[in-house]
Amino acid sequence: MKQFKIDNTDKRIISQIQDKLNNKTKPIGSLGKLENIVSRVCLIQQTLSPELNNPHILVFAADHGITQENVSKYPSEVTHQMVLNFLQEGAAINVFCRQNDITLKVIDAGINADVYNTPKLIHQKMGKGTRNFAKEPAMTVDECSLAIQLGATVTQQIFQKGSNIVGFGEMGIGNTSSAAVLMHKFTNLPLNECVGKGTGLDAEQMQHKLQVLQKAVNHYPDIKDPLEIVATFGGFEIAQMCGAMLQAAENKMCLLIDGFIATAALLSASQFYPAILDYCLFCHQSAENGHKYMLHHLKADPRILNLDLRLGEGTGCALAYPIIQSSVNFMNEMASFQSAGVSTEKTDN
Amino acid sequence: MKQFKIDNTDKRIISQIQDKLNNKTKPIGSLGKLENIVSRVCLIQQTLSPELNNPHILVFAADHGITQENVSKYPSEVTHQMVLNFLQEGAAINVFCRQNDITLKVIDAGINADVYNTPKLIHQKMGKGTRNFAKEPAMTVDECSLAIQLGATVTQQIFQKGSNIVGFGEMGIGNTSSAAVLMHKFTNLPLNECVGKGTGLDAEQMQHKLQVLQKAVNHYPDIKDPLEIVATFGGFEIAQMCGAMLQAAENKMCLLIDGFIATAALLSASQFYPAILDYCLFCHQSAENGHKYMLHHLKADPRILNLDLRLGEGTGCALAYPIIQSSVNFMNEMASFQSAGVSTEKTDN
Repeated sequence: MKQFKIDNTDKRIISQIQDKLNNKTKPIGSLGKLENIVSRVCLIQQTLSPELNNPHILVFAADHGITQENVSKYPSEVTHQMVLNFLQEGAAINVFCRQNDITLKVIDAGINADVYNTPKLIHQKMGKGTRNFAKEPAMTVDECSLAIQLGATVTQQIFQKGSNIVGFGEMGIGNTSSAAVLMHKFTNLPLNECVGKGTGLDAEQMQHKLQVLQKAVNHYPDIKDPLEIVATFGGFEIAQMCGAMLQAAENKMCLLIDGFIATAALLSASQFYPAILDYCLFCHQSAENGHKYMLHHLKADPRILNLDLRLGEGTGCALAYPIIQSSVNFMNEMASFQSAGVSTEKTDN
Repeated sequence: MKQFKIDNTDKRIISQIQDKLNNKTKPIGSLGKLENIVSRVCLIQQTLSPELNNPHILVFAADHGITQENVSKYPSEVTHQMVLNFLQEGAAINVFCRQNDITLKVIDAGINADVYNTPKLIHQKMGKGTRNFAKEPAMTVDECSLAIQLGATVTQQIFQKGSNIVGFGEMGIGNTSSAAVLMHKFTNLPLNECVGKGTGLDAEQMQHKLQVLQKAVNHYPDIKDPLEIVATFGGFEIAQMCGAMLQAAENKMCLLIDGFIATAALLSASQFYPAILDYCLFCHQSAENGHKYMLHHLKADPRILNLDLRLGEGTGCALAYPIIQSSVNFMNEMASFQSAGVSTEKTDN
């Protein structure tokens, strides 16, 4: 597997950050989580005057062999159809990126269709979907390594164009199944806390999904190596996203973490390089059942939005972006008590 | 008191709104609270293609006689100083309005200072702060009626300039004390659930604030009339905000509700015209202790943000605005399953 150089952020400027926050014309701490968000951005960028430049969202799309087990409410073709919808600017992620001036890039990581003549798509297809991990590993370890490497190249390209903040989204019918098993393997939480209703399964369908996934997990009792776990249960889009995230952390970019699938990719990436977590902004807590437990496991705070979203595509990142921009703006633009001539707290009360 | 004409929104188009939502290219319900937000905007505007035009935030500022009882961490002069900060564009609300293209108007409803030669300020001062309600009513019923009328004129002016969405903010050292008592009187919740730490009181200071307010409440055992309650315990900025909100609902505008003080003004307004609640978007749940209970009392859902804000100034409205814009944009701009050629759910699973 490609090696990355990912260091923890240098915490020595924390007291300077806190001083600057405390001198803004507002009661101390009164901007709540916005203060935590901008502190993190300052640490990532090692500055008291952070900037968000050329924001991107990368949406990785791929199909999943596990859909043969009838674990999703929508047919597999929807992956391809939705990618065409992205390219035609008709999906939710298009709307939100357009509104917030975020550049969207869509990557074919392994869609089960021939998607040619589409220059707006980044072509790095690993195959027409993974294999069905209920029967055999979703991919080989070599394929998984290649996916991580390919994902990293996409981040590297936008970084070279001056981007310092990047969100990660996905499209892949069946990928909540992959993500749930990765979560189970990496957190040791019971599988039933990791499995959710995905795009909208009812209770009976969810029970079926849980049985399929439990059987699949039992099928590979001995695997412990993180790369082998991602290869066995992951998806091409999840593995490429994992590589894209690792490259972003190496580049000291801000990583915008979306919902259940994207967080599972991050959880995977953090098995290789735990310091990646220092570079993450957790955009929202999804309505997908396991997400809150996964965020808790990652000590992921603050969680910027809690809007019961369960759409994926990176929509949580795009929606949270203006809030992150607000946190950066107040740090840079608000007056201090001194500059505005405002009295501070009474010393004797 | 000025009379308003405020009707409940007409719910007959709900099924058409739901059909349009369900045909967007996403799993049903997967945009969570964004779907609730845009449904409400559609009901207010009686359309399936809503628009947000010329957004404004009105910040009402005034001083409070109750500060003589040492209930706040900051001296009273901060009200005036912060208003000057607003006019010099240095406060948090300036930063967030600038970012999100919201027009900010600041109103002197009763600051304890001579604020002349400031054309950017809307001058409708009711006095140099209210009287100390620990000893006598904060204002007379006639003053309160006048404040409601004056507040209404500000909304009317922006409405005539084409605004259909307006947020309400405030600045007034001591106004969490007013708001806490109004909440107690209108919800019948115990006073200690209504009192919070305001700009940052410690436990001992909060205990003192609670004692002062309990004594003040006991001082007027018999008042039941809502207008008399607002007159006795309210503030000039709260009463003007109350009028501004009522006028906005009469005009069928979307009302952006901020934190503890603004919600207390809405709670007061809803005593006169309960239908006002149909026009409200609840921008955030504040870190001020009583706010969650007040929102619960008002059945205020969804609450868009939960970022532990406790700053006031309308900052929660300004921060939530892009999310509301996103909800309107997806309703108008997203493709439908039919137009994008995307398969719907499997009928036989």
